[in-house]
Amino acid sequence: MRRDEFMKMARRRRLDQTLVSDEANVMALTGIRCDNAVVTKDAFYTDFRYLPMVRRFAPQGLAARDIRRLAGAMPRRAGSRIGYEASIPHSRFLELKKLAPRATFVDISKDIAALRAVKTGDEIAAIRAAAVLNCEIWKEARTRFAPGMTERDMARIIQTLMAERGDGEAFSTIVCVGANAAECHHEPDGTVWNGREPVLVDMGVKLNGVCSDMTRNIVPPRARPIYRKVYDLVLQANRAAVAAARPGMTAKALDKVARDVIRAGGFGRCFGHSLGHGVGYEIHEAPAVSKRGDMVLREGMVFTIEPGVYLEGNLGVRIEDLVLLTGNGCEVLSEGD
Amino acid sequence: MRRDEFMKMARRRRLDQTLVSDEANVMALTGIRCDNAVVTKDAFYTDFRYLPMVRRFAPQGLAARDIRRLAGAMPRRAGSRIGYEASIPHSRFLELKKLAPRATFVDISKDIAALRAVKTGDEIAAIRAAAVLNCEIWKEARTRFAPGMTERDMARIIQTLMAERGDGEAFSTIVCVGANAAECHHEPDGTVWNGREPVLVDMGVKLNGVCSDMTRNIVPPRARPIYRKVYDLVLQANRAAVAAARPGMTAKALDKVARDVIRAGGFGRCFGHSLGHGVGYEIHEAPAVSKRGDMVLREGMVFTIEPGVYLEGNLGVRIEDLVLLTGNGCEVLSEGD
Repeated sequence: MRRDEFMKMARRRRLDQTLVSDEANVMALTGIRCDNAVVTKDAFYTDFRYLPMVRRFAPQGLAARDIRRLAGAMPRRAGSRIGYEASIPHSRFLELKKLAPRATFVDISKDIAALRAVKTGDEIAAIRAAAVLNCEIWKEARTRFAPGMTERDMARIIQTLMAERGDGEAFSTIVCVGANAAECHHEPDGTVWNGREPVLVDMGVKLNGVCSDMTRNIVPPRARPIYRKVYDLVLQANRAAVAAARPGMTAKALDKVARDVIRAGGFGRCFGHSLGHGVGYEIHEAPAVSKRGDMVLREGMVFTIEPGVYLEGNLGVRIEDLVLLTGNGCEVLSEGD
Repeated sequence: MRRDEFMKMARRRRLDQTLVSDEANVMALTGIRCDNAVVTKDAFYTDFRYLPMVRRFAPQGLAARDIRRLAGAMPRRAGSRIGYEASIPHSRFLELKKLAPRATFVDISKDIAALRAVKTGDEIAAIRAAAVLNCEIWKEARTRFAPGMTERDMARIIQTLMAERGDGEAFSTIVCVGANAAECHHEPDGTVWNGREPVLVDMGVKLNGVCSDMTRNIVPPRARPIYRKVYDLVLQANRAAVAAARPGMTAKALDKVARDVIRAGGFGRCFGHSLGHGVGYEIHEAPAVSKRGDMVLREGMVFTIEPGVYLEGNLGVRIEDLVLLTGNGCEVLSEGD
């Protein structure tokens, strides 16, 4: 199905051949995870380690071929158009170019990203399961957090649960105590939690090849008024975006919904990142839900909604949910707080 | 120290400027882990997220600069030589090229790989600790393996221990029951272990930013004669290579030592991969210990010795150790079986 759309795209862009080798792209187009592959219009080139698997599992229409014979896939005619991914290593590009020196290489990274942004039924089911597990792990981890623990201790609790119940982390778990949350990409360190400060946790478990992503905050019962104010504002921005998300709007229009709420609350300059990003085989994929995100949102897209406000040396709040765009709105996959 | 050697290399190759951005290379040259960096001869360019850290921790002689000002680092003169890594994404190469259209770009990936292949004292200490932990986890995991478990169950036990005691997996843990071991890169699946078949486990824990790597086999007391024969042969090849390894020889000469043993045993065609690979910040780095590995082995290099024999649909044995090259031989970092 996605392969059909891929072939349609190849025709539309008048490509004589396509060379796809990015691991997540290969997975998305063939269902096969392989770190040494070149997928052409009609064949899956790889090495001896993977050939048996490819012979068994490649979708119809894709022959399994030895990657040492890739030269045979190259169109001979001068001016042939070859679709490739500009994300491949430059050295790899030079090798491919050498096999087809007279061809025009056309970057199709964005075309594939757009195809991948709309998830298949199987992918949605897998991401849903990963998101549910992520929430369960968060609930369990919370009960194990105790005053006196360091950020690293708390991160390890989450990492261990992710390995035990899922396939490990989709990205390095972030745990920030108090003012450390003002750094968006704080690495868990030896900072000790006294049990009264807020804690920000950004976590995503991997399960069956797909990712999840969610950020939660432990709000102390006696939070400082400024923290409470910021928390409520960020939550309001999150809810506004969840309520507004629907197919047909651009990603940047959705970004603006949340940004306007934060701006109206007087913290516009403290929301330095984009509202969200697609999630699937990779933790960051299309659509980019940002100020410049031109992609039109479509049913079946899965992305995060994660407004945040950061006051350096003081506090940070980010509330991140993973949502699935439906026919007339969106479904939050990361339930609970 | 490594930075001194890097600068020496830059002079030798007559480079007017260097642009290093691969995460592991940046780590190896500066001690700073950063996924958006360009390290030049005298500055560390990165974005606002990392600038405070770089200001604090960059080695002397490297100024912290905003990556949006990278253009200022480019030599103006036509014919200037700029050292870069051909491993960067092709799209990134095009961006850099645009900033210095008249310069000659010289690939220094291999030069940096060669510098990284010889570990510093700190790196050796870190890898040693990771290897020791890896062995401990293996011993612990073995006692938890039980008949009736699937490959996935056993892999999960290892993964959980790695998250709990280390920083997770250096690569996807491989567990193969019986004939599944004939596939070098078998993914743990639902195959159930009856407690009498051999099990192959290839595992490496990450710890403090470095990797470890080791393959062990559970040899059943009543293994089939063919399995026992292959196992003894692979062990003999492993031991021969460990005994032969010393500074001054080429990587391919060492590969040949093990390969000759396997060939003499009549299984030459069933050892399809190279003898080993360097291990450090990345799980695969220089030196490549293969048939074509031209690098001369030097004291302080850390690499795997992992001969294997694979009979499709029948069995697979690989015995992999991580070794440190010393002044007159090598030290096995992955002790025990």
